[in-house]
Amino acid sequence: MVRTLSWDDVEDLSVGGTFLATGGGGDPYIPRLMVKQAMETYGELTLVDASELDPDGLVLNSALLGAPAVFLEKIPAIDQFTGATKMLAQFMGKEPVAIMAAEVGGMNSIIPLVTALELGLPLVDADLMGRAYPQVEMSVFTLAGISATPLAQADEMGNRLIIETANNRMTETLARGAAIALGLANAISCYPVTARQVHDHAVLGSMSLSMELGKRLRAVQRGEPGAYATFLEYAKARVLFTGKVVDLDRRTTRGYTFSTVVLEHADDPSRVMRVEVQNENLVAFEGDRVVASVPDLICMLDQETAQPITTEAVAYGMRLDVIGLASSPKWDQPGMLELVGPRAFGYDIDHVPIDLDVDLVVPQRQPAEQVTAVTR
Amino acid sequence: MVRTLSWDDVEDLSVGGTFLATGGGGDPYIPRLMVKQAMETYGELTLVDASELDPDGLVLNSALLGAPAVFLEKIPAIDQFTGATKMLAQFMGKEPVAIMAAEVGGMNSIIPLVTALELGLPLVDADLMGRAYPQVEMSVFTLAGISATPLAQADEMGNRLIIETANNRMTETLARGAAIALGLANAISCYPVTARQVHDHAVLGSMSLSMELGKRLRAVQRGEPGAYATFLEYAKARVLFTGKVVDLDRRTTRGYTFSTVVLEHADDPSRVMRVEVQNENLVAFEGDRVVASVPDLICMLDQETAQPITTEAVAYGMRLDVIGLASSPKWDQPGMLELVGPRAFGYDIDHVPIDLDVDLVVPQRQPAEQVTAVTR
Repeated sequence: MVRTLSWDDVEDLSVGGTFLATGGGGDPYIPRLMVKQAMETYGELTLVDASELDPDGLVLNSALLGAPAVFLEKIPAIDQFTGATKMLAQFMGKEPVAIMAAEVGGMNSIIPLVTALELGLPLVDADLMGRAYPQVEMSVFTLAGISATPLAQADEMGNRLIIETANNRMTETLARGAAIALGLANAISCYPVTARQVHDHAVLGSMSLSMELGKRLRAVQRGEPGAYATFLEYAKARVLFTGKVVDLDRRTTRGYTFSTVVLEHADDPSRVMRVEVQNENLVAFEGDRVVASVPDLICMLDQETAQPITTEAVAYGMRLDVIGLASSPKWDQPGMLELVGPRAFGYDIDHVPIDLDVDLVVPQRQPAEQVTAVTR
Repeated sequence: MVRTLSWDDVEDLSVGGTFLATGGGGDPYIPRLMVKQAMETYGELTLVDASELDPDGLVLNSALLGAPAVFLEKIPAIDQFTGATKMLAQFMGKEPVAIMAAEVGGMNSIIPLVTALELGLPLVDADLMGRAYPQVEMSVFTLAGISATPLAQADEMGNRLIIETANNRMTETLARGAAIALGLANAISCYPVTARQVHDHAVLGSMSLSMELGKRLRAVQRGEPGAYATFLEYAKARVLFTGKVVDLDRRTTRGYTFSTVVLEHADDPSRVMRVEVQNENLVAFEGDRVVASVPDLICMLDQETAQPITTEAVAYGMRLDVIGLASSPKWDQPGMLELVGPRAFGYDIDHVPIDLDVDLVVPQRQPAEQVTAVTR
C-alpha cells in the first residue's frame, strides 16, 4: 500500500518509534525539525511496501551511528545523511529506488524520512531490527547472510569513508572505530539490498507499527480515559516495574553510551530493579532474577508525561514505567541468541523470554490536567 | 630517463632504501621475494622520471601501513597491494599511468615495484618523504597542500576501506584506527596526484639515490677496501656513535612500534647514546644533549655485516654504527618542523640540525673474510 505521510503521521512515528527503540537511537527532536523543514521544501513523503517496488531496485538505509549521549550536544549537518547515502549509491554505481530505516529508533526512525524527502524517494515500511540495537551487525539481515557492506560513513566536517568487510562484525568494529575518531555522531548508509531482499528478509511493517503505537501513546499523553490500557494491549506489552530512578551511572566509552539505572518500586521500596544499558536497555534484573533481557524489548515511559524515555535522557528521580514486549517474530531464526542474546553483550546469563501470559495491570496515571505539557 | 631495472638494481634499491628509511618501513625480505616472482611473471620493470609521464596522468602509490614489529610475523597476501591501488583507481574512475613509493622504507621501497609489475606500469623515481615516517600525513605533499585522500586500505582477509578526509592528520587517525582493527599490516594507496604534481612537489630521484647508496653499501658488505669511506662520503653522512646495544625497550601500542634503544660506546663505556623510536629512529641523545633529531636521518648499520638495521630487528648486544645525515632539501619549506620536527612526535625539544661540518671519521670494520654472510 502506498501511503502519503502527514505531519501527524510523522509525530506518531516519532513517538511510537522512540518507544520501540528500547531507549536507543537518540532523541528525535532535531530529526523532527529536519523532517518538518524537508516536508516544506520537498513536499510529499510516501511510505511503500517492499513488494510495491521493482524487486531488483536498490534500497539503501540512512542512520546515525554513535553514542546517544553525544547526540544531545552534537547537531548533525543538514546534508550529512543524504551525503552518506549518495556516497554509497555513487560507490555502487547505481541509483536507489527507495530509502529504509536501519533500526526503529528515536532519531533513526526519523532520519530516513529526511533522506527520502531530499532524494525524492519513497520510504519502505520496514527496518533491519524491529527495535534499536547498539551494533551494526545486530540485524535480521546478518541472520540472512546479507553483508552490511559496502557501508558509507560521514561526519559533519567532510570526513567520509567507504567500508567493505569480510563479515558484519568487522563492519561494526571499523565503523565504530572511525566514529570514535570522528566524534560519535556519524551518518551511515549500509546493507545495500534489493527490494526483493527487503521483502524476504527485513522486519516488515515496522514504520506502520510505530505509527499505530505512537497514535495510541499520544492518546495516553493527552490523558484520554482508558488509553493506556488500549496502548498496552495493542503493543502486547506488560508493565514490568513502576518506580523512581534512585541511582544512575552513565559513561560513554568504546564508542557507546553505557549506563546502569536503578529504580525503587513506587509501592514497595524493598523491590529494586536494575537495568543495564549499552545505548539501548538490554537486561532488567530484580535482585538476581532476570525480569527481561535482549532480544525482548525493555522500554521506559515517563509516569507523568507518558513520553518514551531514551537512555541518555534518564535522570535521577524520574518516575518511570518499565515495559516489556517480545521482539519481532522475524528474529525467531537460528543464530538469534548468538547475535543479540545477553551473551552477545557480555552478560553471562541465559535469555529468559519475557512473561506475557500474566494479566495486564495498568498502573494508575495522573489525570490529564496535571500532566506537564511536553512540547518536545 | 627511462631505465629498466635489473635484479641487481632491486638489490641495491633494497639495501639503500632500508638504510635511508631510518629503521622504518619494515624488513624488505618478503617484498624482495615478491618482486623476484613478479619480475619472472611480468617481465620488465621500468623506472621513469615524473617529467616523462603525461603531466595529467594519475600517479598512485602503494605501501604497507602498520607496525614494523607486526610485519615480522604477518605475511602480506600476494594481491593485497595491487588490490588497494586498483580499488583507489576504481573509486576515482581513472586508470593510473604510473606507480610511486609513499616513502623510502625497507619494505615500502620494494612493494611499489611489485604493484608496478603486476599492473604493467612504470615506477616513478620519487617518493613523498625521502625517508620513512610513521604517519601518513608526514609528507612533502602535506606541505604542498595536497590531500592524502581518497585513500584505499586493504587487509589480507578481504576487508577494505576508502577514506576521504578534511585534512591529512585525520587521514592518519582513521587509517591507523582501521589498521589496528585489521591487524596492523595493511596495504594502502593514497595521495592520488597527477604526474605534474609529482614533478612539482615530490622528493625526486629517491629511488635512484637509494640504488646509488645501496650499490656503495653492498661494496662495504663485501669488505672492499675504502668502501665504507666512499659510502659515507657519497651519503654526506657522519657516524654519530659506535657502540653496543645494552638496553632495549620495545612496545607495540596505538598502532605503532615504539622503542628505546640504549647503546654503550665501543671505545668509552662512559658514553651512552639513547635513541627514541616510533616505527623510525626519531631522536638520538647523549645524556641530555640532542645529537640528532627528526627531520634529520638517524640510521643504524650493523658493525659486522654493514646491513642497515630496521627498528624491529634491533637486538640486545648488537654492535651498531649510528649514522646521521640531513633530510632531503625538498623538506626545507615553511611548516616542516610543525609537521615532522621533534615536537610533532611529542618530544619537547628543539630541532638541532645535525653537525655535518666535522671531519669524516670512518670506524674500523672487520676484514671481509670475517664478515658473517648475510643472505637476507
